[in-house]
Amino acid sequence: MNITVAQLNYQIGDFDGNYTKISAVIEKHHPLSDILVFSELSLCGYYPHDLLERPEFIQQHDFYLNKIIENTLNLSCAIVLGVITKNTTGLGKPFFNSLIMIHQGKIIYTYHKKLLPVYNIFDEARHFEPGPNQMDNGHFIFKDTKIGFLICEDGWATHRDVTYLNNPAANFEKAKLDLIIAINGSPSNIGKQNDRLETFGRIAQKSQTPLIFCNQVGGNDDIVFDGGSFILDQHGKPLANLPYFEASAGQVALEHVSHTLTYAPPFKTYYLPSEIELVYQQILLGLTDYMNKCHFKGVVIGLSGGMDSALTLTLAVMALGPDKVKAIFMPTRFTAIQSQEDSELLCKNLQVELFQVNIDEEFEFSLNQFKQSFKQNPNKITKQNIQARIRGRILMEYSNQTGYLVLSTGNKSELSCGYTTLYGDMTGGLNLIGDLYKTDVYHLANYINTLPDSTNLIPQSIIVRPPTAELDYNQKDADDLLPYPELDAILKLYIEGDLLNQADSLILQELVNKIPKELILKMHKLVDKAEFKRRQSAPIIRVQKRAFGFGRRVPISMFIK
Amino acid sequence: MNITVAQLNYQIGDFDGNYTKISAVIEKHHPLSDILVFSELSLCGYYPHDLLERPEFIQQHDFYLNKIIENTLNLSCAIVLGVITKNTTGLGKPFFNSLIMIHQGKIIYTYHKKLLPVYNIFDEARHFEPGPNQMDNGHFIFKDTKIGFLICEDGWATHRDVTYLNNPAANFEKAKLDLIIAINGSPSNIGKQNDRLETFGRIAQKSQTPLIFCNQVGGNDDIVFDGGSFILDQHGKPLANLPYFEASAGQVALEHVSHTLTYAPPFKTYYLPSEIELVYQQILLGLTDYMNKCHFKGVVIGLSGGMDSALTLTLAVMALGPDKVKAIFMPTRFTAIQSQEDSELLCKNLQVELFQVNIDEEFEFSLNQFKQSFKQNPNKITKQNIQARIRGRILMEYSNQTGYLVLSTGNKSELSCGYTTLYGDMTGGLNLIGDLYKTDVYHLANYINTLPDSTNLIPQSIIVRPPTAELDYNQKDADDLLPYPELDAILKLYIEGDLLNQADSLILQELVNKIPKELILKMHKLVDKAEFKRRQSAPIIRVQKRAFGFGRRVPISMFIK
Repeated sequence: MNITVAQLNYQIGDFDGNYTKISAVIEKHHPLSDILVFSELSLCGYYPHDLLERPEFIQQHDFYLNKIIENTLNLSCAIVLGVITKNTTGLGKPFFNSLIMIHQGKIIYTYHKKLLPVYNIFDEARHFEPGPNQMDNGHFIFKDTKIGFLICEDGWATHRDVTYLNNPAANFEKAKLDLIIAINGSPSNIGKQNDRLETFGRIAQKSQTPLIFCNQVGGNDDIVFDGGSFILDQHGKPLANLPYFEASAGQVALEHVSHTLTYAPPFKTYYLPSEIELVYQQILLGLTDYMNKCHFKGVVIGLSGGMDSALTLTLAVMALGPDKVKAIFMPTRFTAIQSQEDSELLCKNLQVELFQVNIDEEFEFSLNQFKQSFKQNPNKITKQNIQARIRGRILMEYSNQTGYLVLSTGNKSELSCGYTTLYGDMTGGLNLIGDLYKTDVYHLANYINTLPDSTNLIPQSIIVRPPTAELDYNQKDADDLLPYPELDAILKLYIEGDLLNQADSLILQELVNKIPKELILKMHKLVDKAEFKRRQSAPIIRVQKRAFGFGRRVPISMFIK
Repeated sequence: MNITVAQLNYQIGDFDGNYTKISAVIEKHHPLSDILVFSELSLCGYYPHDLLERPEFIQQHDFYLNKIIENTLNLSCAIVLGVITKNTTGLGKPFFNSLIMIHQGKIIYTYHKKLLPVYNIFDEARHFEPGPNQMDNGHFIFKDTKIGFLICEDGWATHRDVTYLNNPAANFEKAKLDLIIAINGSPSNIGKQNDRLETFGRIAQKSQTPLIFCNQVGGNDDIVFDGGSFILDQHGKPLANLPYFEASAGQVALEHVSHTLTYAPPFKTYYLPSEIELVYQQILLGLTDYMNKCHFKGVVIGLSGGMDSALTLTLAVMALGPDKVKAIFMPTRFTAIQSQEDSELLCKNLQVELFQVNIDEEFEFSLNQFKQSFKQNPNKITKQNIQARIRGRILMEYSNQTGYLVLSTGNKSELSCGYTTLYGDMTGGLNLIGDLYKTDVYHLANYINTLPDSTNLIPQSIIVRPPTAELDYNQKDADDLLPYPELDAILKLYIEGDLLNQADSLILQELVNKIPKELILKMHKLVDKAEFKRRQSAPIIRVQKRAFGFGRRVPISMFIK
């Protein structure tokens, strides 16, 4: 039996576009395939959220689904597709998140997702009813092949911290299946690829059945799907995968008696890129897709001479090329010569056009205006934020004028502590590095500098310079907060400590144990108090298990000691 | 049997404060009570969201819960309290959302909420496991009184558009109960009070049992609980209620044989204020609580001379008094004399200090700076937004300097269409009128002008003047968009049409039917395209069924035709 696995880049609600992509794969691969597999909710794009409540969204979905079904009338292969189906019982949520198998113009099998994730970024119980456990054992025989089906979370019952009342994959253990097909809308984050292997490896091994894991690709707002669809043998060992962060379709073949899976390019022997390479690729695709799906013409970045804006600019150029990227350098009296030299050198290295707007005169004007208007001298914070907000406005001027997207440049350490100016450096429509702690920012910058043809693309002088906001004379981040290695350890434990593996957690805990308790509590308090700023943040491309945004929900007006 | 019903104002996570409030009611009312009833999740505050994932949050909760339990050791009355309990089955979410009855130092009855709302602003399945239906019929006998218990959503099975697989209240129909007690964390929105009466009236009537509906009071971010706890007779008829938007505790008495409920002040004969009065009170409490719970010293508002900022300023003064409210008027060349005169008159009426900062010079400076820096003339939108953003910065200067909260002033019509400047007039930490369409804004302004001692508090000249952003010469909102009555009808149907009752929906539909289809679609498209702005909006006090924010989740990068 020949199976085509397709990991495509879908846009949410672009039914015509998604249909066209799906149809192109069917057109090309059907002659040599018995089954073509597409990912979870592929026709509508994952996750549509409340668009599911719009009747026209469902109408469009069904219209294009019927077109796909009609197109299979004269094909010998079957299509496995993730779709929305209606819950016609009259009780519960209006839809199921379903997998259907289409063959010769008919739906020959339907499976409803049984475990609906409701944690972190996931909200599926908002619109879907779980598939009734007793109604379906999740397997079906097609062309003499007994196939078990799973939809994404269905496979995670034994892995999550949140356990479920039932485990759909357990149905497979005594079912003597020939093959398991899991369709997924599985977003990428650090550690996720290994988690998948471990979790689905256990399913394959316990069921003694080879397994196909079909994912999707692409960025939707802050979430990026990495593809990397893979196949496992009946012992749970990974055999091969499709590329990461790239739309792709590849063929595998199941030998019936021995249950051996073989594969052809673009499937390659299973390969897992390094953590930092995955983060890098994820950010690039996240930006590219946000640009394309929202129709921006390019991006513009306020360049300070510091590490964060330098990395953001470099990532943007890597994703979009230098022509679609602009930089604006906006010095004041507090700006060191080095900031200017480093900014110029970086833009030269990246071949990016650099605008310079000296904001000191307007800053001075604003200070005087403040004194006259409010009959008092601006305090330290007021003075600092004026500068950041003039810069934010100038970036937005360029954006309004050109249709370029402003990328904001706050990292996760700053956003955690509120060491960032609302409507100032937080200005922007997307943040590429907001889920990277400052220490991760350096790690990624150093990684880029080692890529082929990128040696020292980001000037070393930027990397080695002590971080400063340059909103005052002789200002240093480490003086306002803590040195970043210590700070990041505190923050990471506080924000996502419960999601870390034990080894990582222990290393951080050891570092934090050396820090006075009152300093740790002070930093925790900063995190809680800065929630009002983060609530107004641009979407942040999610790379860690728990990012700021949809996946972390806390009240602003909570009690803080 | 004497029952005290307490609707208190809890802060999320303020265990010590919430404990103190609960204890004060127990202290005062226990001598004359058989049961004291507190609302859903009252000890921790509703809804704690991901704070539930913090171990110290649960520890604090349990510590104070134990104190409450210990305090009842020598009391003859029982306490009914909404608390977090642990799911010890090892399967499913870690907690139940529970009602416990405490008596003489022991928990004598525990009921777990069976229906967890997962729609609109509600996310309860994120942390709670539903109470197992088969384990508990939801009633318990205390002092010879057979009482049925419900927690909030448990009562809504027959009302919601989303139906549930089971209806906990149906257990009561043949149970021959003496009393039903429903504890709630039921936020206010237009129509909600009638919805409650209808829904819980049906439960009382079907069970032929009198019913006590205990709510809570107070604002948590964008959500405001209105109190208004009420009692129904065994035919479902409302007898009495506690005040709206005011912490309060009152007594009712159940006569055993006849099942008659009687009541004493502060319970009064059931009274439902008008829709507009409820909206008004809701906004005032929302602001007051946000101020107090987040420790702001006052509020500052950019006054334009237009309706939105005038209403915002007036609401702020009504909530906080004039001393804690400041206004800043920031004219340019486009500002009419009338705007200044009206602003001055309004501040005089309200006795609010008014600062004036003419921003024209800085605007001119910015235009020239733009030309020099980017070698092109700023376009219309760029020029308009510069003004709004200079104003936003000046408001934030005042805020940084004084610790005053900036109130943003965009209404729901503007926010819907994106007719508002990100980091400009959207600047602020809270928006009082962002869930009011422009036509609602006028309605509320006129209502305030009819209140005792408030006749023409808001100058008529502001109310009758055609709306203008004054970012250009002779600009009119109606030219950029549509006249507001038509626009609002389109928007309301598009944004919350599915939640309206049939009568309201028909009236709007009739108005919209007269508008050319392409204009309607153009407005829909504006709504979808402005999602990126709303994602960065300040919290908006929710007054309609579907407000922008947590309760309406759509992707930014969705496909838009």
